[in-house]
Amino acid sequence: MQKKIDPWGSCDVKDYDKAMKEFGIEKLERFPKRNILFDTGFVFGHKNIRAVLKAVQEKKRFAMMTGLMPSGPMHLGHALVVEQMKFFQELGAECYVASADIEAYLTRGLKRDELAKISEDYFLTYIALGLKADKCRFYYQSSGSQEYMNLSKFLAKKITFNEMKAIYGELSPAKIVSALTQVADILHPQLKENGGACPVIVPVGLDQLPHINLTGDLAYRFREEYGFVKISATFQKLLPGLQGGKMSSSQPNSAIFFSDGGDVVRKKIMGAMTGGRKSVEEQKKKGGSPEICPVYAYHLLFNNSSSGKIYEKCKKGELMCGECKKELANVLVKFVGDIQDRKKKAKNELGKYFR
Amino acid sequence: MQKKIDPWGSCDVKDYDKAMKEFGIEKLERFPKRNILFDTGFVFGHKNIRAVLKAVQEKKRFAMMTGLMPSGPMHLGHALVVEQMKFFQELGAECYVASADIEAYLTRGLKRDELAKISEDYFLTYIALGLKADKCRFYYQSSGSQEYMNLSKFLAKKITFNEMKAIYGELSPAKIVSALTQVADILHPQLKENGGACPVIVPVGLDQLPHINLTGDLAYRFREEYGFVKISATFQKLLPGLQGGKMSSSQPNSAIFFSDGGDVVRKKIMGAMTGGRKSVEEQKKKGGSPEICPVYAYHLLFNNSSSGKIYEKCKKGELMCGECKKELANVLVKFVGDIQDRKKKAKNELGKYFR
Repeated sequence: MQKKIDPWGSCDVKDYDKAMKEFGIEKLERFPKRNILFDTGFVFGHKNIRAVLKAVQEKKRFAMMTGLMPSGPMHLGHALVVEQMKFFQELGAECYVASADIEAYLTRGLKRDELAKISEDYFLTYIALGLKADKCRFYYQSSGSQEYMNLSKFLAKKITFNEMKAIYGELSPAKIVSALTQVADILHPQLKENGGACPVIVPVGLDQLPHINLTGDLAYRFREEYGFVKISATFQKLLPGLQGGKMSSSQPNSAIFFSDGGDVVRKKIMGAMTGGRKSVEEQKKKGGSPEICPVYAYHLLFNNSSSGKIYEKCKKGELMCGECKKELANVLVKFVGDIQDRKKKAKNELGKYFR
Repeated sequence: MQKKIDPWGSCDVKDYDKAMKEFGIEKLERFPKRNILFDTGFVFGHKNIRAVLKAVQEKKRFAMMTGLMPSGPMHLGHALVVEQMKFFQELGAECYVASADIEAYLTRGLKRDELAKISEDYFLTYIALGLKADKCRFYYQSSGSQEYMNLSKFLAKKITFNEMKAIYGELSPAKIVSALTQVADILHPQLKENGGACPVIVPVGLDQLPHINLTGDLAYRFREEYGFVKISATFQKLLPGLQGGKMSSSQPNSAIFFSDGGDVVRKKIMGAMTGGRKSVEEQKKKGGSPEICPVYAYHLLFNNSSSGKIYEKCKKGELMCGECKKELANVLVKFVGDIQDRKKKAKNELGKYFR
């Protein structure tokens, strides 16, 4: 039996190469523009990226669509999705960013009045991280256009219960409504009111693959009625948690939140698990293992210019974990602090993103 | 096992008393105002009618909610729902009338562009039949308010798949979305934007009982979050078809449509099945059986003032079927013709009903 991914559960993938084979994801090709996420293999796979590359090369209209789940505070892992959004925005994409507030209400046990508050914090952080207002629209699933709302219902016509079960496993009315709403999110940049059919790139984690597959099927089945073309997706790894496992809002020491003060950020990093040896002596003698070290993964993604030197010195036993952590802490305390400052200014900008 | 009713199938009930027992419907009590539908037992049962009676007596706000299914042309059977709507409107109800266009799209195989055209024809006929614009709002499921649209999704949170299956039998994503949309229709008069919680009466056929039951459960589960109070429903019989079975759009000779010309109406009635005897001689000797005669049922509902005399004469063998049909044809040719005339004028009124 084929393995199923549950987008409403957690998804902790150890072997991405195996997962790609299993779930029909292709290896990522080179982009016309370099980017750290692609260069480091952090974005590891795609479906139908060619349609997007073609649009970029021919300077034709294309869109990027992504969503945020307003549950728990935003952490560094979320920032890397925004990095990818910025990348596609710079390549010329129209950007659509949904707060999945209906899905959060239906599947995460949040109260309706909490959803807007959490979402706004995410949106402000997205702006602080550098997503531009030009050709970019933020929206809530609960305040989408009439056409979008109707699409999310009409889609139900061309999918059977057993097909959804094959994609998602156990189903509930809440999951069915959530999934159809997600599909409408991904397809709505192609609605007439938004400019009609065009390639749409959806950057996701592997846990969102079921939604991508369902959308693929439904886009095809509604190709005549709505004129949809095939969607595209990139698949991004999860940022490792500071304690070695997953970065998770429910384990505060595993994650650096954008709401953390400088002292907290520093303390969390200094307490992180590393790929270092048991003793300073052994480290000096044998060198560390940056390949499995979360601290090094952070250097690679957030302190890339120094990461080559760090890798080398670590391997040679010239860099001790404490020192390495201190350097990362300096980088991230500044990064998080800057974002906090920019978020304050972003409040005045927010209106531009909701048109 | 308890019998299930399929609102997306057909429902041909022979024994209403048995059905009431089986499905927990109560016998209808007397209304403060006489009406032919109640007096004749055509409206045969209710759930929680007391809340509405109380509101009428205390002159408090209450609403009536009903929907039309835009599939097939409107016939005389549909007019009797409008009669009940007028009755509650005269008692002071706010009236909400939905075109179930999303449900029709999802479950009836209609194309999206046909739905508005068919719906408008129904709406015009409702106006022609005498539904007033005062405190009355027509809408399409596909153009309801944001709050209504969201409600139709949020409802999914508090119902399980197995609960829905117990109510509806076999399910599909299309049926789940349709059912939740129907529940939102029935509950939305109680949304804050419409004035908040109040008794809502929903006149339906027995085939709609599953929606009434699901709405009852969900209204209770959302009583704190939305403040909903218990809904009320009346259950109306089906008008018998002219050929003895069900009146159905798919069997044109069984139904009188509001689009039928006078000659067609007359021809259909003259060809109707009756409760008459095999020969004129036998009829004169033994009398007819108005109790099982569709022609008599029509006299009762559309020619009520003469129906007492007709019943008596038929029983005594003093009235032959041909003559009886002629009288009905005269009444209904005029009735349908009048509605056709009024529909033309209703076009100018339509805007008042969409606010």
